[in-house]
Amino acid sequence: MRKLDPVKHEEKRREILDAAERCFVRDGLKGASISSICAEARISPGHLYHYFTSKEAIVGAMIEARLEEAAARFAKRAEGADVLSTLFGEMKVTRSGHPALLLEALAEANRSPPMAKALQDHTKGVHSLLADLLEKGQAAGTIDPTLDRHVTASLLISIIDGSKTLYLRDPKLDVQEATRALQTMLVRYLAPASDTQKV
Amino acid sequence: MRKLDPVKHEEKRREILDAAERCFVRDGLKGASISSICAEARISPGHLYHYFTSKEAIVGAMIEARLEEAAARFAKRAEGADVLSTLFGEMKVTRSGHPALLLEALAEANRSPPMAKALQDHTKGVHSLLADLLEKGQAAGTIDPTLDRHVTASLLISIIDGSKTLYLRDPKLDVQEATRALQTMLVRYLAPASDTQKV
Repeated sequence: MRKLDPVKHEEKRREILDAAERCFVRDGLKGASISSICAEARISPGHLYHYFTSKEAIVGAMIEARLEEAAARFAKRAEGADVLSTLFGEMKVTRSGHPALLLEALAEANRSPPMAKALQDHTKGVHSLLADLLEKGQAAGTIDPTLDRHVTASLLISIIDGSKTLYLRDPKLDVQEATRALQTMLVRYLAPASDTQKV
Repeated sequence: MRKLDPVKHEEKRREILDAAERCFVRDGLKGASISSICAEARISPGHLYHYFTSKEAIVGAMIEARLEEAAARFAKRAEGADVLSTLFGEMKVTRSGHPALLLEALAEANRSPPMAKALQDHTKGVHSLLADLLEKGQAAGTIDPTLDRHVTASLLISIIDGSKTLYLRDPKLDVQEATRALQTMLVRYLAPASDTQKV
């Protein structure tokens, strides 16, 4: 049997994930099939199975990659910068923002227990990153210490979800103004009482 | 030609919309077909076309019905009650909350220009209801007058969108606690500076 080159293997794996993402965005998670993913990635089904054994495995790998990216961003941003700035970095209203896959995943989670499980596992990961960040901010005096960091982390995730729909719902939205408004809301919500001069 | 009884016509129309909603939630907006909707509503395609000429027309009618319901709720709640209580009424975190159709519509809007148009028209309607409510609150002194009511209305819509994903992302969430946290956030964000004792 041929030995696999780990670098090439990882490259191909990423190519397949990118192709699958294009299919999911175009056809929906339910509509996309292994054969359409193979066509998009220019790979045979037999070859694909060296990398992923099912559509669910592809979705799982995608979610895992997102979580790793988020963790890396958080770690990088949290170095030196304050907690609110780190949060601001995660909560920009954008025109693109690639919300398609997130919205697909949310819609599909309503229907499919394995997708719901994958979404919930991912949520736990992000939740834990945010709760740690809030704890750090509470210790440093930049986040209101009376806030429960677990329910606040859940709420922040829902605000990030909601921010993905802003531009889709209103393409005439001024994204800079909306981002500023989002940041104002976060400061008013999260800053300690002594800092709550209305901004 | 047989004359249509308007009451029966409206009843049947609603039955079809309910059946279509079940199909959309089960199969996705893209996956559901006119024939699956006919099967679910126990009606022939020929008969269905007396009520709706396309799947898009069904989705449009559904969105219109939601907007009318929201307008009626707002009008009812806004009588006598204060603006923040009215908003609280719209922003409960629930276990059910029927987010399925909303999430389907958002995912599909990313793909389909007619769906995007329908979503954007609906958003304009809700936006206008919320902006009026905020203006009323600003006049009455219960909403911070320095907030721009248009960008704030957009943000509130995105928060409502986000609140629909809370329970889906974390089925162990304490919904009462999450609702309280959401209300705390709204008060801190929207109340005039003089009222901003941290709650």
